[in-house]
Amino acid sequence: MTGGGTAKGAAAKAGDTPPRFDDDFAARLEELLIWRRDVRRFRPDPLPDGVLDELLRLMTLAPSVGNSQPWRLVTVDDPERRSAIAANFERCNRDALAGYAGSRRGRYARLKLQGLKEAPVHLAVFADHATEAGHGLGRRTMPETLDYSAVLAVHTLWLAARARGIGVGWLSILDPAAVASDLAVPEGWSFIAYLCLGYPLAEDPVPALEREGWQGREGLGGKVLRR
Amino acid sequence: MTGGGTAKGAAAKAGDTPPRFDDDFAARLEELLIWRRDVRRFRPDPLPDGVLDELLRLMTLAPSVGNSQPWRLVTVDDPERRSAIAANFERCNRDALAGYAGSRRGRYARLKLQGLKEAPVHLAVFADHATEAGHGLGRRTMPETLDYSAVLAVHTLWLAARARGIGVGWLSILDPAAVASDLAVPEGWSFIAYLCLGYPLAEDPVPALEREGWQGREGLGGKVLRR
Repeated sequence: MTGGGTAKGAAAKAGDTPPRFDDDFAARLEELLIWRRDVRRFRPDPLPDGVLDELLRLMTLAPSVGNSQPWRLVTVDDPERRSAIAANFERCNRDALAGYAGSRRGRYARLKLQGLKEAPVHLAVFADHATEAGHGLGRRTMPETLDYSAVLAVHTLWLAARARGIGVGWLSILDPAAVASDLAVPEGWSFIAYLCLGYPLAEDPVPALEREGWQGREGLGGKVLRR
Repeated sequence: MTGGGTAKGAAAKAGDTPPRFDDDFAARLEELLIWRRDVRRFRPDPLPDGVLDELLRLMTLAPSVGNSQPWRLVTVDDPERRSAIAANFERCNRDALAGYAGSRRGRYARLKLQGLKEAPVHLAVFADHATEAGHGLGRRTMPETLDYSAVLAVHTLWLAARARGIGVGWLSILDPAAVASDLAVPEGWSFIAYLCLGYPLAEDPVPALEREGWQGREGLGGKVLRR
């Protein structure tokens, strides 16, 4: 445990009575999954004091391969660094737009794909490929599981944030090497995600890309094989 | 929506009143994160009818790059295929053991790293690299976000399962190409995770690898940079 938690469970230790999660909690968790969104439209209001630290602490409860805990986090507040990230996005997004043709190109151009300017919190997430933690367990044949562990931490943050009414937007239209350079992170930190956090302008159970006619939900049809 | 949901939120649509998640829910969610485990010791009891289908449906609520929903799922019941997976693990684990020396080697040999034999449900997760869904949005500079999307679905399943008292164990000590071949999945499906699901023999807030002296929790120290 990292300590410092305020919630009842934070000091849980071996031998404690396991919690029982009832049907009501399962239903609320499903609502959380349904109303979590990849947010691109934020109110500029700051997060309350201490909330970001609490969210970062909760990230450390994510699963990780061999308990390697490879997530590394960078809060980005410096205006020049934020500008560098925005310029990185602009370059990559221009290239992406050039890859579309016809009506899809027009639709792409109209999408709002990031909320860098409005979001009060910018958080870059990396995976430390040089970590000794976990002693290599579980990642000999699948070294990518180190990156996956950082992704699991991102999702943990995402849900914990949404449970507090805070939206998260994941920006991947970036040159990863340039992000690492612009944020001057240590050698060996591999870029995973650039996250914007803040209160969303609106809440919706339907993904923005579905509402905007880009890509709807597919369900499970054709995605499950029995073997 | 994929339809067929029983929980209140499953039919949510644009314009619905957003749910309010209170402090009690946030505290319960934290307990869920704390008591989620990478389970390797299962009771052999089957899951109740319909629960696996419900969990798979909930996976489709995960975020994905460009709403590409690239997760592809294989339930593995055939005894010969299960044996092939177990043999794959045995080979990879023998190689992994050979990579350790001294006391760490002995400790590795004593770890129970999978519950393939006991777990009633085996679920292999892939990412479809050939999917057209999402029209490439968000993954031009970071194609690995397609794999990350499948990882987000795994974590969604993990939490939803734990909320029902069901444990999940992620096995990565496998040769990915052999898994794809043994399960005869379509071309283009890239192996992400092999999951065992079932009721855990015991529940604990402390990771097994910490209890067994392999790797303890590190907290956030040294992992957060300010830029």
